[in-house]
This record gives sequence, structure tokens and C-alpha cells, in this order.
Amino acid sequence: MTSILIVGAGAVGALFGSALARQGAQVSVVCRSDYEVVSREGYDITSPLLGNHRFKPHQVFREVAECKTPPEFLILTVKVLEGVDRAALIRPAVGPGTVIVLIENGIDIEGEIAAAFAENELLSGLALVGVGRGAPGKVDHQMLGQLNLGRYPEGPSAAADRLAAMFNAGGIGCKVTENVVGARWQKAVWNATFNPVSITGGMLDTAVMLGTPESTAFIRRAMQEVCAIAAAAGHPMHPKLIEQLIEGTRAIPPYHTSMALDYKYRRPMEIEAILGNTVRAARKHGVSAPILETLYALTKMIEARLSAAS
Amino acid sequence: MTSILIVGAGAVGALFGSALARQGAQVSVVCRSDYEVVSREGYDITSPLLGNHRFKPHQVFREVAECKTPPEFLILTVKVLEGVDRAALIRPAVGPGTVIVLIENGIDIEGEIAAAFAENELLSGLALVGVGRGAPGKVDHQMLGQLNLGRYPEGPSAAADRLAAMFNAGGIGCKVTENVVGARWQKAVWNATFNPVSITGGMLDTAVMLGTPESTAFIRRAMQEVCAIAAAAGHPMHPKLIEQLIEGTRAIPPYHTSMALDYKYRRPMEIEAILGNTVRAARKHGVSAPILETLYALTKMIEARLSAAS
Repeated sequence: MTSILIVGAGAVGALFGSALARQGAQVSVVCRSDYEVVSREGYDITSPLLGNHRFKPHQVFREVAECKTPPEFLILTVKVLEGVDRAALIRPAVGPGTVIVLIENGIDIEGEIAAAFAENELLSGLALVGVGRGAPGKVDHQMLGQLNLGRYPEGPSAAADRLAAMFNAGGIGCKVTENVVGARWQKAVWNATFNPVSITGGMLDTAVMLGTPESTAFIRRAMQEVCAIAAAAGHPMHPKLIEQLIEGTRAIPPYHTSMALDYKYRRPMEIEAILGNTVRAARKHGVSAPILETLYALTKMIEARLSAAS
Repeated sequence: MTSILIVGAGAVGALFGSALARQGAQVSVVCRSDYEVVSREGYDITSPLLGNHRFKPHQVFREVAECKTPPEFLILTVKVLEGVDRAALIRPAVGPGTVIVLIENGIDIEGEIAAAFAENELLSGLALVGVGRGAPGKVDHQMLGQLNLGRYPEGPSAAADRLAAMFNAGGIGCKVTENVVGARWQKAVWNATFNPVSITGGMLDTAVMLGTPESTAFIRRAMQEVCAIAAAAGHPMHPKLIEQLIEGTRAIPPYHTSMALDYKYRRPMEIEAILGNTVRAARKHGVSAPILETLYALTKMIEARLSAAS
């Protein structure tokens, strides 16, 4: 039985963990904030994809160090935030054969983990899922639920194939890519645009951001900057990607980005992982990205205002 | 006795009107929202510059059309907003000899008035004043209180000299300029930058906007765009202007821009007059202004969100 440890088992981690457990993996979780409820009752998950069900992890830990047996897969689903040393966080549970899996947002988020665990295989994963946490231990899966997974920095991986097969068997569509960095750039075209725009002026939902021809043209220009950076970084995007993303966003009901929800609930925002690293890649490759630079300056001011107010 | 009609006598109009009345002008006002109180009791003004006093206008009108005798000076202090036809608003009170005076924010705000009243002398004025309205009829003058006035589009003006002398005699420092369009561009370097930035992310005050080296560098780059547009429009700015504005802003206590206060109190914002016209001038003159274009797109989204919510 495959042993899996999910570190940072919030809504995303719990949902994906439950899918892996359903198909027979031994899934344990490290879960700090909801520890009491989850260790007693597990997660109460409502999901149109997996059905409403209760997910009882094999073991529930409050700290990574409580996990004495290194898992075969350690899946990290914590936010990528300044001041959070993810390598130090997972180190106590990483064994020689542990495959480390990052299911996290952002650009250039793998480097520090790859450097810290040079001997371990590292998989990088992108989730496309709308899922939130209600009360402690309650997971509300609203829409989507797909994964894109690949060896970092590139190439085929038997471990990725194996994990993907488990996800698929458990009900979460999971594709394996040999170019996960390119996939991350592709996701950044949406993420590095809609996320920062959504937190300017209070909270803007996707319907407002695509509400007029002018606003749509603006979003398009911002996305073009991300595409130019991605191309300079060696990952040219498909010429139709931007229109597909805009049409795809229009096709689903208006919604708030993850950054907008973090803003609303005064949670830390992944500005650096999602936007700051994108801007730094632009600077590194000499690509002009004035819209993203502006959004970056504005979101950092917002962050400063919120932290001054808290 | 010089007859003066102030149209849109909110805080700015009342304060400046009271200064003119103090030195002997016959000042009437058109005042819609506070009509009841003002017609009965006048304005209750607290001012460190003019002292705390009551200003009883010669006549108080609810509508411009009630003013049957055209004044020598018609001073317009209403906001410049989309959908507000200022020419139609003042037409009933404009006589053949009436000098029209705009004391309003923004860039390129004179053209429609100049076209509508081609035979009248038009003065354009910029106020540097911190003044707000408290309860109806209450005017709270907080700081500054200066005017910059000149014939539109340029050149000397005996009427400007006369009006400035009255302001100065009444306690409001007023300079006459022969290049008021250039003065307007100079003001836009501050206004078109700090105003829109201040309403992104809720409300940012000047201390947050100049809070870090990065944010200050961003403000500086935005100001450089305004300077480039101004230069292309024939009004090169002094090379030290930007640093003077930044230092000057740092030198006074943190405060909220007029647009931030409008945002806070859900009042219409002068996005088009302050920023939209600046961006359109950039496009017209072929000047690249990606930061201002971004701020314009974002502020229009904010406006759309607020109007959808109201």
C-alpha cells in the first residue's frame, strides 16, 4: 500500500488526499489549524466530483516531525509565502526514497526545494480546482478538480505516472507532463493577471475584469506580457492561449480569484510566488512588463496597508 | 460692487466665495444639496487661514436659472464628471460680459466650455486646498488654500488680474499665470498619479504610497509618464518637479487624496478628468504610458464595480 503524507492539508490537500485514499493509498496528513476536529472526525467533504463523503486519514499529525516513517510520496500543499521555509518544514519526514510533490501556485517555486533535497525526486504539480474550507474540517469542493503533474525540471517520471494513475483511479483527472515548467508558465498567464487585478479596488470578480471591451483589452495586454516572459524563459505559449483563457473565464460564472479570497479574509496572499517571481523573470530576461510591474507595485502597497492595519 | 456667482458651491466654492465676499464682492451661490440650510443661515466655515466665520451669500439659488442678472464672474466649482453637461448647467446665468471661471480638477477640461461660450472670456483655475464638507452648510478648511489662475488657453488677462487681486485681498493667495494649461499639466503630475493609485486596494494614503523605496520608485515612474505626455503636449516640466512633489508629499502628514475620499464615501470620482484625459493625451501624442494606462483600466473596473453595487 502506497504511503502518502500530505503536508498543509487545507482544502486542496484534503480533497486530493481523499481521492488518493479512496483508491487504496495510505494517506496521512499534517494539519495544524484544524487538528482537533480532523484527528477526531476526519474531513467532511462535499464534492460534486467525488460525492459527499467523510475522509479519515490514516494518521493525523500536528507537526511534520511527528511522522516517524518517511512516506513514499510527500505532497506539499502549503502556500508559497515569504518567510516560510518550506524545505525546513518538510525535512523531518523526507526519507532517502521519498518523492516530493509540490501542488502549489506560482512561478519558480521549485528551486529551493530541489536544492535542499537534491537526492530526492521532485514532482511539480498544478491544481485546477475550486475548493474552500468552511468550518474546521469542512471542505467545500465547488468546481473543477484537475491536476497537471511532472518531474521537475523536466522529463519523464515513473513516479509521476504512478501518482497520476492513483489520482485518476480516485476520481481526480491527472495529466502527466514532461514540461511542467512550461505548464506552470501557462497557468501563470491566467494567475499573474487575474489574481493581482482582482484585489485592486476592493475585490473585483472575473465578470467585472472582463466586463467591458476596454477591461478585456487590458487583461489581454497583461497576459501578453506574461507570454513574452514565458517565451524568453524558453516556454513559448500557444498563440491562441490568451483567447482561450479569456473565453474560458467568460464561460463559467463570475468568481473571485484565490488572491481575492485571501484579501477578503485577511489571509497572506501569494503575491511573490504568483506575481513577484513572474516580474523577476521578466527583469532577468530583459523583457518589458510595465503592466505586471505596475500590478506588482500596487499589490505590494496593498499588502503593506493590510499588514499595517492588522 | 463686483457681482460673482458661484455654481456648485460645495466646500471649495463656499470657502473661496467667502474670501471674495470678505473683501467686498457681491457673492451669490447656486447650491443644490445644502440649499435649505445655506439659504437660511449661510455657511458655517472653520478655517485656519480665514478664521472661523459665517458666510451669508448675497443670494442663494437652488438652480442656475433662478439667477436673473448675469454676474460679472461666474465661478464653476462642480466636479468634472461624465454625463454632466457643464455648459448647459451654467448657460442660463451667462451674459455677454460674464467672465467664466473654472476652478476644477483635471486635464483638457476647458475645451467644451470654451466652445460653448466662444464670446466670453474664460479663466481656468487650479485650487490647492484641503477643505471638506461636514454637516450641511458646514465647511471644514483643513490646510493650504491657494489658487493659480489664468486665461484659457493662454496669455495675459485683465479679468484674471482683477479676480486674483480680490482673492488676495480676501485672504486666499492667488497667482496669475499666462500658461494655465502648463500649470494644469504640472498639477496632473501629482494628481494623475496619486489619485488613481490611492484607490487601488481599498484606500492607500500618501504614507503607504511612498512607504518603501520600491513604491516610491513606482510613483516616480508614473510621474515620469505624465511629464512625458506634458512635454509632448508642449508643456515640458521642470526637471526637478518630480522630486519636489515627492519630497513635498512626504513633508506633510499622511493623507487621502480627493479620489480616495470620493471612493470612501461612494461619491462620483473624477477618473476621466484627472486620468482618462491624461491617457487620451498620451495616445494622441503617441507617448507610451503603460503605467497610467494600467491605472486607468483598473480605476474604470473599480468604478464599474461600485456602480454595479449601488
